[in-house]
This record gives sequence, structure tokens and C-alpha cells, in this order.
Amino acid sequence: MTAPTIRPVRFLGMFNEIARLGATEAGGVHRLAASAEDAAARDRLTGWFTALGMRTLIDPIGNMAGMLELAGPNAPVVMAGSHLDSQPQGGRFDGALGVVAACEAASVLRDAAAAGKLSARCNLAVTNWTSEEGARFQPSLLGSSVFVGGMAQAEALERIDRDGMALGEALRAIGYSGQATLPHPAAYVELHIECGPLLEKAGDRLGVFTRYWGAVKHRLAFIGEQAHTGPTPMAERRDALLGAAYLIASLREMSEQAPGVLHTSTGRIDVSPNSPNVVPAEAVLFVELRSVEPDVLAWAEAQLRQRATAAAAKACVTLDWRAVAHRPAGRFHQGVIAICEEAARSVGVPARRLATVPGHDAISLSSICPAAMLVVPSLGGVCHSAAEFTADDDIVLGTEMLTRVLWCLCRYGVPE
Amino acid sequence: MTAPTIRPVRFLGMFNEIARLGATEAGGVHRLAASAEDAAARDRLTGWFTALGMRTLIDPIGNMAGMLELAGPNAPVVMAGSHLDSQPQGGRFDGALGVVAACEAASVLRDAAAAGKLSARCNLAVTNWTSEEGARFQPSLLGSSVFVGGMAQAEALERIDRDGMALGEALRAIGYSGQATLPHPAAYVELHIECGPLLEKAGDRLGVFTRYWGAVKHRLAFIGEQAHTGPTPMAERRDALLGAAYLIASLREMSEQAPGVLHTSTGRIDVSPNSPNVVPAEAVLFVELRSVEPDVLAWAEAQLRQRATAAAAKACVTLDWRAVAHRPAGRFHQGVIAICEEAARSVGVPARRLATVPGHDAISLSSICPAAMLVVPSLGGVCHSAAEFTADDDIVLGTEMLTRVLWCLCRYGVPE
Repeated sequence: MTAPTIRPVRFLGMFNEIARLGATEAGGVHRLAASAEDAAARDRLTGWFTALGMRTLIDPIGNMAGMLELAGPNAPVVMAGSHLDSQPQGGRFDGALGVVAACEAASVLRDAAAAGKLSARCNLAVTNWTSEEGARFQPSLLGSSVFVGGMAQAEALERIDRDGMALGEALRAIGYSGQATLPHPAAYVELHIECGPLLEKAGDRLGVFTRYWGAVKHRLAFIGEQAHTGPTPMAERRDALLGAAYLIASLREMSEQAPGVLHTSTGRIDVSPNSPNVVPAEAVLFVELRSVEPDVLAWAEAQLRQRATAAAAKACVTLDWRAVAHRPAGRFHQGVIAICEEAARSVGVPARRLATVPGHDAISLSSICPAAMLVVPSLGGVCHSAAEFTADDDIVLGTEMLTRVLWCLCRYGVPE
Repeated sequence: MTAPTIRPVRFLGMFNEIARLGATEAGGVHRLAASAEDAAARDRLTGWFTALGMRTLIDPIGNMAGMLELAGPNAPVVMAGSHLDSQPQGGRFDGALGVVAACEAASVLRDAAAAGKLSARCNLAVTNWTSEEGARFQPSLLGSSVFVGGMAQAEALERIDRDGMALGEALRAIGYSGQATLPHPAAYVELHIECGPLLEKAGDRLGVFTRYWGAVKHRLAFIGEQAHTGPTPMAERRDALLGAAYLIASLREMSEQAPGVLHTSTGRIDVSPNSPNVVPAEAVLFVELRSVEPDVLAWAEAQLRQRATAAAAKACVTLDWRAVAHRPAGRFHQGVIAICEEAARSVGVPARRLATVPGHDAISLSSICPAAMLVVPSLGGVCHSAAEFTADDDIVLGTEMLTRVLWCLCRYGVPE
């Protein structure tokens, strides 16, 4: 590897600029997909693309690509990126790191090409995928799923937020509903924080995700009957929230039957009418099941159906069921993983092999091209919180590693 | 009793006019306290007061009184009324019936006085109490509690809704933050729907509330730690919603230990950040315990503390505890009850003695003056729902009974 190194001060400056857009008092960011804050971050990214001489493409679902031509207009395209949207009251590293790092890498590669030091076989595209978080619009990985054909574009554009606004409408409102088609990638690489405690616990500074957990997500509506909490006899109540509570407790118990290989959660509940003295008529739960073992995930999904039915029956309410996402477990590309590991060795720091539990855009991309992910530590494993933290030295190291991987892919092409 | 009878068509016309303000597709009303819909209903009421020659008083918490002078400026004041605010997606009878019926009674008494047929000892005030429902602003019975000195006015005005708007600000915005002092009542009578199934089950058309259940209301915040639902190991999660779910299930179980005399409920839960893939950092529960037996209520409140602490510990989260309301069980005034029963006999329909489980403004008023409540049936016991229904014949009969009670109190004075 003979890639030139990145410029840490420039990179950290860009990273901190993005972190200021939607910054919260707690030190994180609140930058929901297609919000005004997201628009500000997208505008900044567009500005960088332009400054680097890269053409900006925006597709109908709002995915953005900055095109750096290194090898002529018809050369294969290596892609790198992540997402600029965040969780509500989320952290400043999740997603933003991968986009900013890819910009820094593009800057390094452009300068090298301009100086005649890079004779490339591939062009580079820096991407920002729309609505990765699944916070304002469900499910997660929305933009990248549409890009790879895993979800119909029209269906994705119709997804509505809590206030009834559709994603398509929100994108038009911020000026990021485009007409372009992003190129088919020859390979995809994404730098991300680990969002877990394993690197820190092992004392490692770099990792490579070689596998990803599967995830099943359901939207379950418990439907009861609105009544007065005072006089309605207990035996006559059809309390939707009670049914939901039974299931939440039951799912936790279920996770204990497959310790370490099954994660269960309910992060969101919408109750109506949600008034202190009204027996709830409806409680909508967003349930997630995750496992690295396909058999365990299948077992858990069957259990979920049984347990939800039992919880509803116990509370004398009914169920309305909708599958939101079904993402099987899988493996990233061996060839790209090998390049990542070589890049880690070239910076003198070994990369630990890990499996990712959360979803990432790279999982979508791996269904259409060779893909892998580079990882830097999350302090305390904290993610989806303002308390997310990765040291400057580590995000600089991760960006250096990404740059070397992209250099290698652009210079020598994508392995079989 | 020689009171003239009411005019049913006029009364039903007024009732239906109010039901149109904030009407929902489901046939109910959505008229939250100090909302635009509430303002429209208040404006209509003010219009009726003016048309009847009654002076309108508005106090700083927005309570309204229409003053009908029958016995000179210094005579005692008999009060009758209820509330115009509703639950979210609530019914058109709860509250509105009592206010409109009192207007009809005022109309009858005014005409009788003008025709020289009523020589009164007391004046009449028709009241609309602010924010009885406790839906937008907590706790319930807010306006009447301030009026009787059970709650500090400044504290009540600072109560905020879900969007952070204070009641005082909301009242100013709709023009119902007044400067007047409502008179001290010599007696208070309120007509209301039963909000329970007992009259219908017994085949009775009229009732008198002679007792009221006690109620204890708490706001419990379970405080966990925001984290990613994917990678965070199950054992390391501090899931606020899980703690809340344990308590909701536990409270239901507790109610089964005192069947028929203890009602428990959680009608509202506010989760943050409430995103599908974020372990909830906070879950705020609004818990109610109700009993007609003071000992049972005290036992239940002690149990609530134990069970909430256990639920929080099991989910590895902490608790923040705030008592919202504490209303002991009690009895209405024997003398006013006797007049109500006599009025029922005079219309040829017996009144069943009942205890009210829900809170009503009459409970606040009974702490400062002789008070009682007249009741008409709720079809199926349904309340706090668009499906609330009482037949026209029954609300007319209840209004006739209220008018006779008020006639008697104004004509002969309030019993010891």
C-alpha cells in the first residue's frame, strides 16, 4: 500500500461542522431524516462535493452521491458512505462519521490523481443514504433498501411520520427529491462506529464486520375499547396498554431462553387516546427480534406470534399485525474483508473480526455488490444516545484505514 | 313542588348546539380544555348567559359563572353546572349535559320570576368549571379544585400540556383568563351521566350520587439509559419501558386482590425517545387507584410503592415519583340528597342511590358547601368515548329533575 495519508485537521474540522447541525445541549445531535437539520447537513455535503469538483447526484428517494471521476466516465464505481440522519436526541458519530470520512478519502484520492500519483481503474462515489435510522420513517435502511431493489420506491416514499407527513413530501420540502439514478457500485465500503462494547473490551482500535445479525421487525397494534378508568368494572375492561405490557415483559423473558444470541426489544409504543383517565383503546408496539443464528430467529418469530396472541387474550383485546422488515443474517465479502485487514496491517494496527447486530446500509449494499465495513470503538458500547463517543485519534485512524481501502479498490479494482 | 316544567325542544336544541362544537366523525366530541373547540363552546355559553340577562363572571383559572339575580344582590347563591371540556375523542354527554341543563333551569326560573310565579330566597349561578377532565392538563377537577381552595391557583396555571403550553397561557390565548371572583355557593347541584352501567342494569332512569370513591393519582417516571436496541447486550440494558410494563401488569394483578372495591389503571404513558430501535431512556406512567373504602385505598397506595420499586429494580432502572392527586372517599350532603329524591318522586320516577367512582366537580364543591349530584343512565356504562349515549327522554327527565331541585333550593333556601 502506498496511499498518501489523510489530513487529520481538515477531516476533524469537517466532522465537527456536521456535528453542529442539529446539535443538542447534551452534546449529541437531533437530525431526523428529511428534517430541516438533515437538509442543513445535506447542503453542507453538497458544498463539499462541489468544492472537490465532484458532481452531485440525488435520486428520487433522496439518496445522494458525490461522483469523483478518477478513471474516465465508463469505469466501474467504488462506493463509500453512510448516512447523515440521526436518532432523536442521538449521537454525533453514528452515520456522520462514515460520510465525512469518505469525503476526506475522496479529497486525498483527488489530490493524488491530480498530482499524477494515482492511476486508477475505478471512479469513486461518496454516498449519503436517506433515512437509515428508521426513527422518523420506518423501517430503517430505507434509502439503501430502495437503491438495491429490496423495497419499492413508491412504497418507501409513502411512509409517513408521526404527524402524517409522507417521506416523499418531506424530501420535496427540503429540496432533496431528485431525478438522478445513482451508478451501480462495483464495491461498497462503510466506516462506522461499532455501536457495541467489544472493541473497547478487547483493547482494539479497529475492527472489520465480517458478518451481520438477522433482524425481524413487527408493528403490533393491540386494540381494546376506550372507557372511563373510574367506573368501568375491572372485569369488563379491554385495556390495549395492558395487553402491550404483557407482551413487553414476555419478550424480555423469551430473550433469556437464548442468551447472547437473541436480542429482543420494544423501543416505541404509541397509545391512544393516551389520557390518564381513559382505558386505552389502542397500543401500537414496534417490536424487534435480532439473532446471528437463522434458526434462533425463526424460533423467536414463532414465539412472538404465540406470546402476542396470549398477551392479547389475557387482556381481552385483539391484535392487528404488520411485518415491517425481515433481514436475514449474512456475511460480508471475503475479498473486500481481506483488503480491509491488509489496510489495518498497513497502518500498524490489527483489525478485529466482528459481527454487527444493528443494521447498516452496507448490509443493503452487500446484496448487489462486494461490501464490507470498517469499525472504530464506541466508548462503553454506547450508541443511539447523545453520550456516543469515539476518540479523535480513533476516528482519524478509521478514516486513514478507509482511505487506504478505497485507494486500493480504485487503484487495483475489485477482487472476485 | 310547583315548579314549571322545562321546554324539551329548546333544551335539546341547546344540547345539540354544544355537541357540534368539536364534533368528531365517530359521533363524539374532541374539546380539550382551553382549546379552540372549548373556546367555541364557552363563547356559546356566554351568548346564552347574555340572552338570559345573566351577568358572566370569569375567574383567573377560567371558571365561568352566569349570574341570575332572583332575590336581590346580597342573597345567597345556589350553583349548578358541570364542565364543557371533553376527553380526547370523548363523548358529547360527559360534562356538557350538566352545563346545558343548568342553563335550561335558569331559563325556566327566570321566566317564572318575571311572571311573578317565583318568590326566591337565593340567586342562581350556572357554572362551567375549567379542565375537569384532566386530559390536556393534569390533574382532573382542576378549575373546581382551585375555586374551593384545594389547589393553589398559581400552581394550576403553570400546569403544562404535552407541547409545553401552560394552562394560563392557553386560557389567555382563548380569551378566558378573567379577573372576577365567583361567589361562594350556598349549595351546589350537578346533573351528569352515570358513566357506569348500574342504572341501566337496574332498569332505573334517575339516580342520586350519595357517596364518592376516593382516588389516588401518581405520575411515575421510570428512568433508564438510552441505547441501541441492536448491539446492546440484553444484560446491560436499562430499559425504562420494560420497567413500566412490569408495573402495568402488576397493578392489574393487585386489583384482583380487592375485587369490586379497587380499580387500578394506567391510561397514559409517555416514552422517550420512543424510536423503534432505541432502548427507551424514560417511560412516564400516569397511574390511578380508586376505592370506596379508605383502608383499601391506603393498602393499594402502599402496594403501588412496593410494586413500582420492584418493577424498576427488575428492569435495572430508577424511579422518579410525583403524587398528582389525593382525593379521599366521602359522602354528599344529606339535605340536598333528600331534595333530589323528592324531586325525583315529584316527576313520578324513583331515583336510585349510587356511589360515583369517577371524580366530578361536585366532589370539589362538597368540601365548601352542601352538594349532591343527579344522574341519568349511560348506555352500556360507556363513558370517555365517542360511543357515550343517553336517550333524549332521559336527559330531558334529568334536566326536569335538576330544574325542580334548583327551584326548591332558590325558593325555600338551603337545608341545614
